[in-house]
Amino acid sequence: MMSFTLQWSAAFPSALFCRCSSRCSSKSFQRHCNRTLSEKVRVSDALSSKETGSNVRIQGWVRSVRPQKDNLFLHVNDGSSLQSLQVVASSHLNTRDLTFGCAVDITGTLEKSPSKRQNVELRARHIEVVGECNPVDFPFKIKERHSLEYVRQFPHLRCRTNAFSSLLRIRSEATTAIQSFFRDNGYVQIHTPVITSNDCEGAGELFQVEPAGHNDSDDPNPHFFSVPAYLTVSGQLHLEVMAGAFSAVYTFGPTFRAENSQSRRHLAEFYMVEAEIAFTESLDDLMKVMEGLFKAATEHVLSSCAEDVELFHKYIAPGHRDQVDLMLKRKFYVISYTEAIDILKSSSQNFTISTEWGCDLQTEHEKFLVKHCGNVPVFVINYPYELKPFYARDNQDQPNHTAAAVDLLVPGVGELCGGSLREERLELLSQRLAQAGLEDTYAWYLQLREFGSVPHGGFGMGFERYLQCILGLHNIKDVIPFARFSHSCLL
Amino acid sequence: MMSFTLQWSAAFPSALFCRCSSRCSSKSFQRHCNRTLSEKVRVSDALSSKETGSNVRIQGWVRSVRPQKDNLFLHVNDGSSLQSLQVVASSHLNTRDLTFGCAVDITGTLEKSPSKRQNVELRARHIEVVGECNPVDFPFKIKERHSLEYVRQFPHLRCRTNAFSSLLRIRSEATTAIQSFFRDNGYVQIHTPVITSNDCEGAGELFQVEPAGHNDSDDPNPHFFSVPAYLTVSGQLHLEVMAGAFSAVYTFGPTFRAENSQSRRHLAEFYMVEAEIAFTESLDDLMKVMEGLFKAATEHVLSSCAEDVELFHKYIAPGHRDQVDLMLKRKFYVISYTEAIDILKSSSQNFTISTEWGCDLQTEHEKFLVKHCGNVPVFVINYPYELKPFYARDNQDQPNHTAAAVDLLVPGVGELCGGSLREERLELLSQRLAQAGLEDTYAWYLQLREFGSVPHGGFGMGFERYLQCILGLHNIKDVIPFARFSHSCLL
Repeated sequence: MMSFTLQWSAAFPSALFCRCSSRCSSKSFQRHCNRTLSEKVRVSDALSSKETGSNVRIQGWVRSVRPQKDNLFLHVNDGSSLQSLQVVASSHLNTRDLTFGCAVDITGTLEKSPSKRQNVELRARHIEVVGECNPVDFPFKIKERHSLEYVRQFPHLRCRTNAFSSLLRIRSEATTAIQSFFRDNGYVQIHTPVITSNDCEGAGELFQVEPAGHNDSDDPNPHFFSVPAYLTVSGQLHLEVMAGAFSAVYTFGPTFRAENSQSRRHLAEFYMVEAEIAFTESLDDLMKVMEGLFKAATEHVLSSCAEDVELFHKYIAPGHRDQVDLMLKRKFYVISYTEAIDILKSSSQNFTISTEWGCDLQTEHEKFLVKHCGNVPVFVINYPYELKPFYARDNQDQPNHTAAAVDLLVPGVGELCGGSLREERLELLSQRLAQAGLEDTYAWYLQLREFGSVPHGGFGMGFERYLQCILGLHNIKDVIPFARFSHSCLL
Repeated sequence: MMSFTLQWSAAFPSALFCRCSSRCSSKSFQRHCNRTLSEKVRVSDALSSKETGSNVRIQGWVRSVRPQKDNLFLHVNDGSSLQSLQVVASSHLNTRDLTFGCAVDITGTLEKSPSKRQNVELRARHIEVVGECNPVDFPFKIKERHSLEYVRQFPHLRCRTNAFSSLLRIRSEATTAIQSFFRDNGYVQIHTPVITSNDCEGAGELFQVEPAGHNDSDDPNPHFFSVPAYLTVSGQLHLEVMAGAFSAVYTFGPTFRAENSQSRRHLAEFYMVEAEIAFTESLDDLMKVMEGLFKAATEHVLSSCAEDVELFHKYIAPGHRDQVDLMLKRKFYVISYTEAIDILKSSSQNFTISTEWGCDLQTEHEKFLVKHCGNVPVFVINYPYELKPFYARDNQDQPNHTAAAVDLLVPGVGELCGGSLREERLELLSQRLAQAGLEDTYAWYLQLREFGSVPHGGFGMGFERYLQCILGLHNIKDVIPFARFSHSCLL
């Protein structure tokens, strides 16, 4: 692993020295002195500081103001942690514009706090309000707990609430954890394209792209790319190209579906982690990578974002921590699609849609299967051949003809991952593409099987669903910075 | 820094045990025994192995075949490194289908190599050709060096050439390096949206998105998102939202321009690294982050991909290593736009477009300025106010009215980064947006200045240009896995 030694102060190099000119007034001279002697620190570093007595400078936003007779108490947050730093100042430093939400620049001394609620506090010498905030107009109110639905109305401000700032720190760390998992296991990261001339699934509802202001009817060649171009629904086919050179590859980026849905389960733009592994001959291999990824990423997030995760497990999804611990502790179940159908058919539950061998599983079925297995994640393997896209590997079994495909179902969410072995046998793949009239479209894909073809397979994991699963959040719009869905593209 | 302890064999768990049934034939029984006793290892691990005598299993693609009287020599590559592993086998293991490009699965013993060209070689006991490769049809030929132009025609196969596989390993490591730089310095990674209703630059040539098969004229509400939606040209405005909560944020992802160009400098889809930093009052601060990022990422790539980088510096851009070392060793220059214009006007060079104060710098000017400064990267600061977008901070100077904007120019490439302080003063920003008739469109952006506004700034770096700059590659299509440009969207 690499380690960069740059300090925060190096990335913010003006922290130690004020740029006041020599002509500065006595007020700004005082400010100059304060800043020159004070090291700029982030709130998270101040909170974990063991040295008291040092002069520091804190910059952030006020989360509470409590004026008392002699002293003024503030809480200042700069986004480096969920916790704010308590600031204690003499009452005469209080000003009218020191309100909830305003931005401040404070110098003072870090001291041991007399309170049990924090280790240290900042004894302020100087408080500057850098940016005011009219508490009447500001949509969030001091000491009020706003619902996720309420804050969702303010996509440009909701990151200033505790819950959503915790979510975004977790999302950032989960991204790191996933990338580290793959890197540490020798995978090459590939930036698969967003714009593509393929329709990977042959089924998805696609977005099409053309230059703005473009008009089909006028132009002899109506397409910017000469062919119709779409937003990707999966990087799989591109990863298959790369697995033929690097053995193990992954991609992590946005994917798109033009689904006309405003449900709590759908987004038009969402993130997918996809991996593709060459020289892989069984679903067992894929399932071990999927389970390994889920557990390694989750353990990393739980340990590196403990406070942020606790906020969700304590206030938003009480009891969910036990669910997460159970998923980490237990080995994931594996059942075949055929067994799944048997379980569903013999259950006493009334499903909206009934099941027969050959039908796709609905969310209600997936959730039932997870409950049936004691709320432990379940792999369902070997789906009906006809249900799966052309690239899924034929198991050549009978009478129930299946493909080597796997879905991972998890509590609360349903399908989290989907994967398969890919048909690496040129003849079988040619036949299937010919039946679908797609041999020409996928001539390049067939060539991958002509030149050094190997057994391979891969899977995709919905990143937002992963975050929902570990945090216990019901609405997918609450786990992405800017949600895009039918009739909504704010900012 | 985190470290996952999963081994390669854990991510590829079937490596140690073959799944042959008990009914297997004597040939497959031999294969069974071989595999059961052999640990699957990657070529890079085998090459750096210090223990000889161990039984290993290697899977990859044949890069050379050299049959001699008693022995057969192969080179096998699995994408884990530029170097291939030399395999030595008895001649009787040679088969017709053992050709350049075929996929093989080989078990044998790692031995110290008698040759000076490698430390170890694999003495093969068993060679299986997993996937054949007809050398007549395969577009790459054994021992031939194909030009970058030639291999570009085969986007689904070019990753199997040395140069492009090296490029993609470097690209993957550079991605890691950039993300680690920001993470180690306390930045939160934000997934800014690809689909947006903003046009950040107010100038870019935009791609518009609608569901495929959608037809404007039929529909009372013609837009999927209710408003026109575009592919992002920059995540800056979204990052500014986030900088108001986390102090320091970055994004790294695809951005888009519908430029009708097939030049070696343009792509319709390319990657950008963008950072935004709150409580930043001077361009110096931004420049230190930009220079720090460039140097830290480059040093990481040079050390972790030494072999791959050397391929470019030795065979494709001879002498470029000295250029890179110079950029790392020297402090980057800083000149003002006004100084830049003076330099250009007093030069004896004939430019295609002549310069006057107030004009934008062209690539020819940028390259001249870099040469003028001894081929060291140059920051050009304080551009004419009128040249810059609405968000650039007004320097309120005269007579030459400038904005606090900065471009980083680098050898060979020209503009690598662009950034600015952002106008955080509500009144000035309101005025400028009103002049452009954009107050309503950017009402949310103005609100960021109403509620706890802070001085802030940020920059973007073109990732492909960065790779071109450190590797000395002239064509941007050679540094991205799948190039998209006007009239081309292969795969």
